[in-house]
Amino acid sequence: MTVALEGRDLVSIFDFSDAEIEAVFALADEMSEHTRGKVGLCDGLIMCTLFYEPSTRTRLSFEAAMVRLGGGVLSVADPAQISVAKGETIADTVRIVESYADLIVIRNPLEGSARAAADYASAPVLNAGDGAHEHPTQTLLDLYTLRREKGALRGLSVALVGDLRHGRTVHSLAFGLARFGAKITCVAPEGLEMPGPLLKRLEAQFGCTPAQHRSLDEIVTNRSALKRRAGRQKALAAEVLSLFDAVYVTRVQKERFESQEAYERARSSYAITEEVLARARPDALVMHPLPRVDELSYDVDSDPRATYFRQAAYGLPVRMALLAAVLGRRPARVRPSRAGEYKPRPRREVDFRRLADVRCANPRCVTNHERYLQPQFLFAEYDAKLVTCAYCDQELPAPYAPEAES
Amino acid sequence: MTVALEGRDLVSIFDFSDAEIEAVFALADEMSEHTRGKVGLCDGLIMCTLFYEPSTRTRLSFEAAMVRLGGGVLSVADPAQISVAKGETIADTVRIVESYADLIVIRNPLEGSARAAADYASAPVLNAGDGAHEHPTQTLLDLYTLRREKGALRGLSVALVGDLRHGRTVHSLAFGLARFGAKITCVAPEGLEMPGPLLKRLEAQFGCTPAQHRSLDEIVTNRSALKRRAGRQKALAAEVLSLFDAVYVTRVQKERFESQEAYERARSSYAITEEVLARARPDALVMHPLPRVDELSYDVDSDPRATYFRQAAYGLPVRMALLAAVLGRRPARVRPSRAGEYKPRPRREVDFRRLADVRCANPRCVTNHERYLQPQFLFAEYDAKLVTCAYCDQELPAPYAPEAES
Amino acid sequence: MTVALEGRDLVSIFDFSDAEIEAVFALADEMSEHTRGKVGLCDGLIMCTLFYEPSTRTRLSFEAAMVRLGGGVLSVADPAQISVAKGETIADTVRIVESYADLIVIRNPLEGSARAAADYASAPVLNAGDGAHEHPTQTLLDLYTLRREKGALRGLSVALVGDLRHGRTVHSLAFGLARFGAKITCVAPEGLEMPGPLLKRLEAQFGCTPAQHRSLDEIVTNRSALKRRAGRQKALAAEVLSLFDAVYVTRVQKERFESQEAYERARSSYAITEEVLARARPDALVMHPLPRVDELSYDVDSDPRATYFRQAAYGLPVRMALLAAVLGRRPARVRPSRAGEYKPRPRREVDFRRLADVRCANPRCVTNHERYLQPQFLFAEYDAKLVTCAYCDQELPAPYAPEAES
Repeated sequence: MTVALEGRDLVSIFDFSDAEIEAVFALADEMSEHTRGKVGLCDGLIMCTLFYEPSTRTRLSFEAAMVRLGGGVLSVADPAQISVAKGETIADTVRIVESYADLIVIRNPLEGSARAAADYASAPVLNAGDGAHEHPTQTLLDLYTLRREKGALRGLSVALVGDLRHGRTVHSLAFGLARFGAKITCVAPEGLEMPGPLLKRLEAQFGCTPAQHRSLDEIVTNRSALKRRAGRQKALAAEVLSLFDAVYVTRVQKERFESQEAYERARSSYAITEEVLARARPDALVMHPLPRVDELSYDVDSDPRATYFRQAAYGLPVRMALLAAVLGRRPARVRPSRAGEYKPRPRREVDFRRLADVRCANPRCVTNHERYLQPQFLFAEYDAKLVTCAYCDQELPAPYAPEAES
Repeated sequence: MTVALEGRDLVSIFDFSDAEIEAVFALADEMSEHTRGKVGLCDGLIMCTLFYEPSTRTRLSFEAAMVRLGGGVLSVADPAQISVAKGETIADTVRIVESYADLIVIRNPLEGSARAAADYASAPVLNAGDGAHEHPTQTLLDLYTLRREKGALRGLSVALVGDLRHGRTVHSLAFGLARFGAKITCVAPEGLEMPGPLLKRLEAQFGCTPAQHRSLDEIVTNRSALKRRAGRQKALAAEVLSLFDAVYVTRVQKERFESQEAYERARSSYAITEEVLARARPDALVMHPLPRVDELSYDVDSDPRATYFRQAAYGLPVRMALLAAVLGRRPARVRPSRAGEYKPRPRREVDFRRLADVRCANPRCVTNHERYLQPQFLFAEYDAKLVTCAYCDQELPAPYAPEAES
Repeated sequence: MTVALEGRDLVSIFDFSDAEIEAVFALADEMSEHTRGKVGLCDGLIMCTLFYEPSTRTRLSFEAAMVRLGGGVLSVADPAQISVAKGETIADTVRIVESYADLIVIRNPLEGSARAAADYASAPVLNAGDGAHEHPTQTLLDLYTLRREKGALRGLSVALVGDLRHGRTVHSLAFGLARFGAKITCVAPEGLEMPGPLLKRLEAQFGCTPAQHRSLDEIVTNRSALKRRAGRQKALAAEVLSLFDAVYVTRVQKERFESQEAYERARSSYAITEEVLARARPDALVMHPLPRVDELSYDVDSDPRATYFRQAAYGLPVRMALLAAVLGRRPARVRPSRAGEYKPRPRREVDFRRLADVRCANPRCVTNHERYLQPQFLFAEYDAKLVTCAYCDQELPAPYAPEAES
């Protein structure tokens, strides 16, 4: 069956079904042959990158994708360029921009802002990051990297290492991995663990229960089979690498820690160095969303297992595929969804009359900044007892949710 | 007769004759069929958008127009990007930029700056806003909107509502409406009325005397025929809407008012809400240059009479037409001017020897900031007793003007 | 013999041999016929302008060149757009950017930064200015201007006038002139003379010993043949102009002087005015890298000898030639190098074991800011007793250099 993705928004990784993501990946395989040179698929079309926050990598990757597809680009690279000072709302901005462009890529620090943009624009809207909420094309390229380098996602064992609390990248990736049947191990210093609600959802919706560790060492020390071989710290880390098909390292920011000492301890416990790689398994991938700070040594860059630059480069074919598909120039071949696979379903809205004065509790939610937006709450896809903000997905705290459901 | 607009500057709405504006509109009608997709008219040509002040809407609209025409774009979106810090003048910047680009679109906060740019550049210069002075392509798209949505401009009754003192948009529009025979009604809170010299010129040059009102209510209360029907305030506003073919609402900035109370009073007196529109006539247009603040309710957006997003969208075919015409790729068909129509005429320059030390009194005039520019004064087109700055058009106060003329 | 410049970096004017520079100039002659319109040479290729410092002129010139060649452009015009805040290094940025673009043009205030970029990127890197260090395409267009307007470089007599201490432009130009056999006269106020090490290298490597003067007047007063004709100051400057094929004037910044008086004295001693030009020789060129401050009167602009706007315009064909050549789309015809001509040669690296803790003494050197870079020192091309930083070219002070060599 052929279902085009034409006209679709991509605000959250949950907007696309598993089958649709696979169709994008198949298209990305084709596009990989065109990352140099030009392919005329989007000739005559215009994309606008509307960035309220600077982001060289994401913006350039989208713009390169559109240029390689033969399309035109309107670029708003800088928040100061946007008429915010004059009080222009996201809703008004996107409705004006879509009269000039055929597709909008938006980055905005407010959580749920991309959903607001998609609600008001008729043109397809792609979310290039809305605060700590979602960055779905990063998730697509992360998954695509694993699929390309490992052949498939199902059955892969992936360690997520570093600050797992604050990174939207690693949150969306966790869901993506769970959806496609990869096994997750979480390695995070105290206080930077994967948030509870997210773990709850991983289990409730996808039956995925990541193992949890404080450090790479801990993983090894806890495994009797490996214990006896454990000599010094570096060896431990190396053993760990031998356990996983991929280690996804994320940036840890010093300011998250109480003391310099705590930071150093956390950092050293998962830093990937040449020494670590020397003992690791020859086909393990070291991934990182970049930019890095100290968690990846520059010595490692030339090692074939250092996947992070290739990972960034996969952003190009993935975004080319996405653009060509939603712009309707290269219909993706989407197979029917199989039982048990993820597929977005219409969600029941919470009755407004009963929640008239309720606002989203998240101060960074777009509904608390753009006041023309009516707060809107939905029963969670994964737990009918939970109510979440339709924009930023944050759970509405009790007593509203249970009452609302009754 | 065919007269090409090739090579022409557009600094002021007075640079083009009525016949030339109509020719641009006829071309815009053609371009309307190409606002999606690409038309190769400007293939191989380059436009530079030189923005010393950010303006997403205007810049993107020009850039989209050039991309749709198949041309290339060099974009200077941010004042910090321009070598101002190193002391580069407008005259030098445009002479360098024109060695790279075939046409320059300039926005600069100094009044008269676009004229200075046009004086020094050989390439066509289009003014995308020079402070409070002019923004002629906004005027073109405002007029084009009325013409497209109403069929013609002559005989239309248009209310200009809001801050009529500070907005260049509404000033140029008033002249445009007067030139094309529309009837103007001004509605402005105390202190924000249309400036006296502008009213004087409207009358002297175009025989246009706008009715003047403090609020929408006042209009109705003053009309006996309507008086008896006047129930409550909202009804009044609705009645008013029934009197006009179009209501052009402009942004009122809170800081213009002495008190919050005065602001609220002004605002409520002309805010357009769903309730107001419910009673208004079915073919009235609600226009706004955007961005809006509180003067237009979001509820109104989906009403077919809410014209402001279509108005912004008309910027695309109008700018495509203008670019194609001045770049000589699509000669506009300009009919001969008719008697009584506006047509720019050479103006007599005031003798410099007698005005050697005179400078323009406008502190925002470009001649008071870019000192290589010789102040230059012209006898006004509309009143031979008046002398105006050749750059910012501000009247030179007595005693210079009368003496100079004698 | 045909040797393509494909894939080559241009970080320093010393990266290209004399024969290679001549080949670029020959190509620029061809490109001069295409500075209007479009030539499809770089169709399907993408250039990224990565500017950590704003520079309208250089950026627009490169972007116009690429657009005229039919290629695509990714533009990073503003330092705030780059992930510096997140701690991204130059090495990481260029490795990511090259997965989107086929060529990188970089401007960064750190000296040696372009070399660091070229070391890490596989794609060609062109230096668009690295602090006070190098700006080789400016040098190419300066030399090209002289060659175009005068027919050849050999034997030309060129005066370099103004601040000769701080300008990278004038330093690189001095080497370029020396390499191609032009005669140099330096005219600089006290304290702003050409730096000693640079003069030493000009002599040691190219046998060039520029005459040194404090002011244009001094040149004339020192020449007996001209002395008797010396009437007043303006006449002197004019006489001077009659001595040179070209006068290259540079910007003097007020803040370089101890007093306003010293600044005024310096400024007036070499300012080029209409009066000066009136007496100068009819074929002298007045050049300037722009932007100017007070050193060139606007009255002079329309004089055919005022070459500075043509000079800026030559940047277009020169950069088109360079892009087409290094991107391999228009192989430059490079003749074999002749004896005595400049040709870069591999340089011996200073042994690291003996210089383990040595860092470059230049606080603006990239190696003192991007700590993954190993300091690296080379024996100077022009003096085997000198050791220079491989990134910023600054001499390493004794005792390291002599010891290292022994």
